[in-house]
Amino acid sequence: MIKQLTIIGVGLIGGSLARALREAGAVGEVVGTGRHVAHLQQAQKLGVIDRYTTDLAAAVQGADMVLLAVPVGAMEVVLRTIAPQLPAEAVLTDAGSTKGSVIEAVRRAFGELPANFVPGHPIAGTENSGVEASFADLYRDRRVILTPTEACSADAVTRVREMWQAAGAEVTEMDAEHHDRVLAATSHLPHLLAFALVDTLAKMDDKQEIFAYAAGGFRDFTRIASSDPKMWRDICMHNEPALLAMLDCFEADLKRLREAIAHDDGDYLLEVFSHAKAARDRFCDNE
Amino acid sequence: MIKQLTIIGVGLIGGSLARALREAGAVGEVVGTGRHVAHLQQAQKLGVIDRYTTDLAAAVQGADMVLLAVPVGAMEVVLRTIAPQLPAEAVLTDAGSTKGSVIEAVRRAFGELPANFVPGHPIAGTENSGVEASFADLYRDRRVILTPTEACSADAVTRVREMWQAAGAEVTEMDAEHHDRVLAATSHLPHLLAFALVDTLAKMDDKQEIFAYAAGGFRDFTRIASSDPKMWRDICMHNEPALLAMLDCFEADLKRLREAIAHDDGDYLLEVFSHAKAARDRFCDNE
Repeated sequence: MIKQLTIIGVGLIGGSLARALREAGAVGEVVGTGRHVAHLQQAQKLGVIDRYTTDLAAAVQGADMVLLAVPVGAMEVVLRTIAPQLPAEAVLTDAGSTKGSVIEAVRRAFGELPANFVPGHPIAGTENSGVEASFADLYRDRRVILTPTEACSADAVTRVREMWQAAGAEVTEMDAEHHDRVLAATSHLPHLLAFALVDTLAKMDDKQEIFAYAAGGFRDFTRIASSDPKMWRDICMHNEPALLAMLDCFEADLKRLREAIAHDDGDYLLEVFSHAKAARDRFCDNE
Repeated sequence: MIKQLTIIGVGLIGGSLARALREAGAVGEVVGTGRHVAHLQQAQKLGVIDRYTTDLAAAVQGADMVLLAVPVGAMEVVLRTIAPQLPAEAVLTDAGSTKGSVIEAVRRAFGELPANFVPGHPIAGTENSGVEASFADLYRDRRVILTPTEACSADAVTRVREMWQAAGAEVTEMDAEHHDRVLAATSHLPHLLAFALVDTLAKMDDKQEIFAYAAGGFRDFTRIASSDPKMWRDICMHNEPALLAMLDCFEADLKRLREAIAHDDGDYLLEVFSHAKAARDRFCDNE
């Protein structure tokens, strides 16, 4: 049971956690904080938070759990503000999509890695954002990855694990570098490709007509290009090494496919497409 | 009203048209033909076709409308077989995803472009295939593009247009080259990228783990990688110039994004991502 949960950044991610913990009876008071009073008022009106303040330092007072749910590019500034004020008994966790960069931001803000800081990443979300889009079941049967540092206390990890489990999630652990590589592959690179493709087409002279003939497959493929541009700029910049490594692999494979098309090498195309279909059907069979 | 519709290749596309025309009372007899007796038997059992034969020449006898719905790579062989047998009063149309290559195949098979041949492409489909996946509403409010040649008779175009309208589709016309460029952008390139990405990830050492953490966005993005590999091999090979031109534009844009990430150029990333989101939200707003 969490007595006071302070959520820094009450949007889709933070708001959905608050809703889920309330439904589960796993939280006492929920305090929201952030830069925009209107968003916080809206969160209170929706019953997502009990009270709010735009004063970060005041918001963490009395908290036994603090969730940092701001874009990864905004984390260091927030961390520097709360570091001197964080109660000794409070566990600090985050919901950032990149983990290496958040850990480094914490190290810089606190001067060291605190024992009560547990990096985390809920693998959930939609292309919508904002507290209005939040819902209690967002984490139901979804995975949350924790990437504990060498400094983490076992108790802090347990408390964060139990929080996400109370929200319905399945919690696993891996090291931060591995997390960043896996997420570059399954999330960051696909978003980059979707944004890039839509931008390429939107620059064409006959873009009106091009999009007019876009069918279901295109809509599915580009849905993630409707995601928050600032959030994804931050993610790309904060997971640079893993993302660029994955992009290089992809580009090399795409180059080989290009050569196969140019040289009428149908066997190679069929081999790659069949391999991809088999992998996709095997790993995504629970739709 | 079509008296006898002969469908060559009774799968998702041909089967769904037969179902739609039956529901609309717009067809008398539906004759199915293809290579696989088991598929044709299944189509008859499902009530999609009235009768079948694996003899292509016999199948087109008595037809006033012939739909060619085989993979674009199989069209020329089929066309060469039916060319000497096609009744003078029959209109021939196709459902191929590429149009320039089909028109050339018809020209080679018939020695010239017949007045009663109307190239067509229904912009509909799912990642599933086969007659079992067919349904009457597949074309409801979807677009069908006809790309009439200079040889086309106006009457033949009208008859094909009315057939697709009876199935619920909105029919438009454009020239074949333009069609191939538009479809390369919105369909062929996205499929190539989805196949390429899944194949890239499936080759990684930790692929089990990578796919285990794939969330909703990845599933949407890669859904089209579950499409029929042979069909997509054929499409890539039969729309080579337009597809490679579009791929080159995309790769150049992706290269610029890579440089922006490598050089911490957040402004450029934000500009591209915002542009893409705005275009995607504007053009795909009817979800």
